[in-house]
Amino acid sequence: MVPLSTMASSSKTIRRLEVVSPVPADIDIANSVQPLPISEIAESLNLSPKHYDLYGKYKAKVLLSVLDELQGSDDGYYVVVGGITPTPLGEGKSTTTVGLCQALGAFLDKKVFTCLRQPSQGPTFGIKGGAAGGGYSQVIPMDEFNLHLTGDIHAITAANNLLAAAIDTRIFHEASQSDKALFNRLCPPNKEGKRTFADIMHRRLKKLGISKTNPEDLTPDEIKRFARLDIDPQSITWRRVMDVNDRFLRKITIGQGPEEKGMVRETGFDISVASEIMAVLALTTSLGDMRERLGNMVIGNSKSGEPITADDLGVGGALTVLMKDAINPTLMQTLEGTPVLVHAGPFANIAHGNSSIVADKIALKLVGKNGFVVTEAGFGADIGTEKFMNIKCRYSGLVPQCAVIVATIRALKMHGGGPEVVAGKPLDKAYTSENVALVEAGCVNLAKHIENTKGYGVSVVVAINKFATDSDAEMNVVREAALRAGAFDAVICTHHAHGGKGAVDLGIAVQKACESQSQPLKFLYPLDISIKEKIEAIAKSYGASGVEYSEEAEKQIELYTKQGFSGLPICMAKTQYSFSHIASLKGAPTGFNIPIRDVRASIGAGFIYPLVGTMSTMPGLPTRPCFFDIDVDIATGKVRGLS
Amino acid sequence: MVPLSTMASSSKTIRRLEVVSPVPADIDIANSVQPLPISEIAESLNLSPKHYDLYGKYKAKVLLSVLDELQGSDDGYYVVVGGITPTPLGEGKSTTTVGLCQALGAFLDKKVFTCLRQPSQGPTFGIKGGAAGGGYSQVIPMDEFNLHLTGDIHAITAANNLLAAAIDTRIFHEASQSDKALFNRLCPPNKEGKRTFADIMHRRLKKLGISKTNPEDLTPDEIKRFARLDIDPQSITWRRVMDVNDRFLRKITIGQGPEEKGMVRETGFDISVASEIMAVLALTTSLGDMRERLGNMVIGNSKSGEPITADDLGVGGALTVLMKDAINPTLMQTLEGTPVLVHAGPFANIAHGNSSIVADKIALKLVGKNGFVVTEAGFGADIGTEKFMNIKCRYSGLVPQCAVIVATIRALKMHGGGPEVVAGKPLDKAYTSENVALVEAGCVNLAKHIENTKGYGVSVVVAINKFATDSDAEMNVVREAALRAGAFDAVICTHHAHGGKGAVDLGIAVQKACESQSQPLKFLYPLDISIKEKIEAIAKSYGASGVEYSEEAEKQIELYTKQGFSGLPICMAKTQYSFSHIASLKGAPTGFNIPIRDVRASIGAGFIYPLVGTMSTMPGLPTRPCFFDIDVDIATGKVRGLS
Repeated sequence: MVPLSTMASSSKTIRRLEVVSPVPADIDIANSVQPLPISEIAESLNLSPKHYDLYGKYKAKVLLSVLDELQGSDDGYYVVVGGITPTPLGEGKSTTTVGLCQALGAFLDKKVFTCLRQPSQGPTFGIKGGAAGGGYSQVIPMDEFNLHLTGDIHAITAANNLLAAAIDTRIFHEASQSDKALFNRLCPPNKEGKRTFADIMHRRLKKLGISKTNPEDLTPDEIKRFARLDIDPQSITWRRVMDVNDRFLRKITIGQGPEEKGMVRETGFDISVASEIMAVLALTTSLGDMRERLGNMVIGNSKSGEPITADDLGVGGALTVLMKDAINPTLMQTLEGTPVLVHAGPFANIAHGNSSIVADKIALKLVGKNGFVVTEAGFGADIGTEKFMNIKCRYSGLVPQCAVIVATIRALKMHGGGPEVVAGKPLDKAYTSENVALVEAGCVNLAKHIENTKGYGVSVVVAINKFATDSDAEMNVVREAALRAGAFDAVICTHHAHGGKGAVDLGIAVQKACESQSQPLKFLYPLDISIKEKIEAIAKSYGASGVEYSEEAEKQIELYTKQGFSGLPICMAKTQYSFSHIASLKGAPTGFNIPIRDVRASIGAGFIYPLVGTMSTMPGLPTRPCFFDIDVDIATGKVRGLS
Repeated sequence: MVPLSTMASSSKTIRRLEVVSPVPADIDIANSVQPLPISEIAESLNLSPKHYDLYGKYKAKVLLSVLDELQGSDDGYYVVVGGITPTPLGEGKSTTTVGLCQALGAFLDKKVFTCLRQPSQGPTFGIKGGAAGGGYSQVIPMDEFNLHLTGDIHAITAANNLLAAAIDTRIFHEASQSDKALFNRLCPPNKEGKRTFADIMHRRLKKLGISKTNPEDLTPDEIKRFARLDIDPQSITWRRVMDVNDRFLRKITIGQGPEEKGMVRETGFDISVASEIMAVLALTTSLGDMRERLGNMVIGNSKSGEPITADDLGVGGALTVLMKDAINPTLMQTLEGTPVLVHAGPFANIAHGNSSIVADKIALKLVGKNGFVVTEAGFGADIGTEKFMNIKCRYSGLVPQCAVIVATIRALKMHGGGPEVVAGKPLDKAYTSENVALVEAGCVNLAKHIENTKGYGVSVVVAINKFATDSDAEMNVVREAALRAGAFDAVICTHHAHGGKGAVDLGIAVQKACESQSQPLKFLYPLDISIKEKIEAIAKSYGASGVEYSEEAEKQIELYTKQGFSGLPICMAKTQYSFSHIASLKGAPTGFNIPIRDVRASIGAGFIYPLVGTMSTMPGLPTRPCFFDIDVDIATGKVRGLS
């Protein structure tokens, strides 16, 4: 048997696109290309069937064991794609990520891997439509990418809600039982009539400092401490989730059935990708690490202020069982036949908005020395790239060489003072006709993102994502401003219209940037300073003068510090539409104070998240959602109407 | 390319078991056998890779297109496994179904297929544990069978809840918009500035008798009728679902967020397998048929009493897209290497409790002439087999030759007057020591099930599922009673302890029963009588003297009749623990009146379900759920603690 090595040239799987102008609808382009069997893509990566599980013909889960096999081999270059502060229409980060990889793999003969987030099904049926890139830079099959994929989000939903059910049911059963009765039910006699602890109970015993292994030996006080979690219902931060835009679940009252004996409680649902379990999946590094993170998730406090975890509830192992296949990333392909790993898609505000560490690690080994792994960081670089560096790379130990910042003339004009851009409304003509002055004025936003990103010790390449209406003069202004701000290069790309061919210059620039870079990663803040000092370091990077804390925020910071969680990195929950907390403040504002309304924590995933303003974690549906157009062609079984 | 034909001898895949006594735990037996790659099982069925999609190494979805290819070929024999009225411990229907197939395939050299329901994950983590059979008669890998499988239940959850979100959001948007504004949003101008109807809107237009195709041509009255569904919130029967035992969601209030403007509503969650979409999946016959059924699901009424469907809400196509992979049944294997199709698992009371029609159809073609397809009907034969015949076979057009009735000495003793059997409590010694008189007295229950089942025109074979404590004298009494009641044969089986070898006699009896049978199926009632006449025909089969309707039931029967739904078959939601509606009435009671508390309808799935008493559609978790024992072995990745 040939041992696993880094990937063979992917040239066998490369497919040339015949592009059409004007660019057809995304789904029409996606459907016009016959994907290769994913086993052929896997073969081009030197993966044999024992390294992956097929899920249909065009998706496969790459098994984590690949990492063990490739432990000693070299990593490729690591490239992160961020963006300037966007308009509500998005500036094409995913499309650029895919287009850049198509250029590197299909035109520059490089070994390359795209690492992307799995999208939520909520937007697919709601407003936004799909998230597989766009135009001639897409991941295919587009419908499979946007729908169930290989079930990871469904596994998260199942695990999240099993934990939620465990919380309320435990409170319910504790309310009606004595310490002794509770204990006896938790440790029932086995066939030999002897009471035993389940394996998972040893974790709680250890946390309580009880070293006894025989249930019969516990004192009444130890029985009480062990069996009675005494959860304070007011303190519960764990919510239920659903991968649907269901606004009516944002705030609900549960437990109103007669059998629940009046134990009603206000709570709510988030969309599944906002679950802490999604953040765990994105940040974990191995099955064993995931088991620990899931068990350590804190769902609230006891009435005496002790954090209560999933393992205290006895459910950390079951959660891991539900997530054991989800930990393997999903292999797909781009329109031009280069490989893609799709894995995890945590919220970009209340979580860190980056795809998974394990996918990046596998990809870096598979492309090997001089190969490229390109991954995307959600939102603008102030949020996405910042969290990529300070949270994701801190946990993974991986060091990026190059950061791409995607800019559009449209967004720069907005930052320069152009009229408001509103999704669903026609664009003002300032955006569709030449206006060099507006662009020039807006470049302060780009410059600030370049400056911040360079601070991490990476080369910055600006990708100007060209629209048909952009003029050469406008683009030249951006290029000059980017170089002035210290960018390694700034390149015009047309991958939406031309596929990889439109991003060849970008690919060359990224290659040079990577080859010229060998600095270690410089974090924005160390972990061993206080929570407030970390928040303030990030606020300063936004251009803020200071930070203001609400009473609630002060209280939570004190609690988390007391509970021993102050050493975690910080994940700011802030609007993506401004460096500041005020979405309408465009450009590169200064002199503002960042208000921290509240502070929450994802202890299992491993970060504290201060809330800057109100973040919706459950989208709604409009009067006419996308679903009106979506159907199956009965004759062919193909999906129609996805956008 | 070799054309698809009926299956080759499966002997290549047969695996001999080395059985151990006493019988080890189910998970230990399941883990002691290395499953064959599912592609080998598929090959033994003459299926080539184009006929199925792999989901990992031991599961594959068999594509519906197989049915088209095999359209002209012969079906095998069709066998349904029901049971006598059970104890709360279950009498081994699934185990007998699997054991019988292992006997037919591995010992009698027959072509055979087992068709089973997919279990809910709720019980897996709650009380009951898994549902893959037991002892040496199991489907493997047991953890994959009991967990996500190939995602069908997750797809149902997603589809069910998308429809739920569509309902509340539509009410919300209708409340704040004029007819004209609503209409304009529903039919926005396209790129050419022209308003158009989405394809799905033509279904509603047709229902309203509006034949216009240009939105501009509608009169104000037509605009109002088209755009305003005017759903009566009180009439909504569609609930949200989750595949978790979460009792606190049984009754909830939604819409309490400030943005929902006070539009609160009481509703609740059911467990996912109780979704009408699960019943649709089980009863559908093709992709096109599923599209129609999903679109026709009625979620409630307009304020003027018109039924409102998923297609009225514009979401029937999107639901079909979410379900398009779920329609393909999942191929697995038994411990002895015979093939299994796992597909759909609707509730056995508020739905019909049988696995899917499409799986049975595919299996019948694949085994071909003289082969055997064995499927299970949930609950006792009064409910499971009755619904199998009158609902499932009515929709499929398939005709069974043989019905197996599983009986245990334990359950017969209960029917003969033995003490109450309670799950989780030790059995009274009446059940573990010989008591021929109790068994003899209990045989009235078996006799009544035989009589009822024979009425459908099938041969009835009784399978006496032997426990270690059962005596020969006890079993002989059962055998005699069965033959006296008209059974074709009655056979003692030990497949739990011995695998297929323990069910060889049963296999021979079933074969003879099938070969000697060629009657058409005789339904218990025709469809063209009134709803009440149908309910009364079923009640009579229970031994009831009559039926009593509540005021609510009368009202609903009148409404459904007025709405044109009276031609549907009836699906009784009744306890499985008695022929009557009173669980404690054992044996074969007579002279009781069946009370109908309410009547509901699953119009898309295609049945009306009268509620006899209160049916819980959301289980709860005990103080110490199964999940305490479930974990992943980090070193091997294997699941521990499933039962």
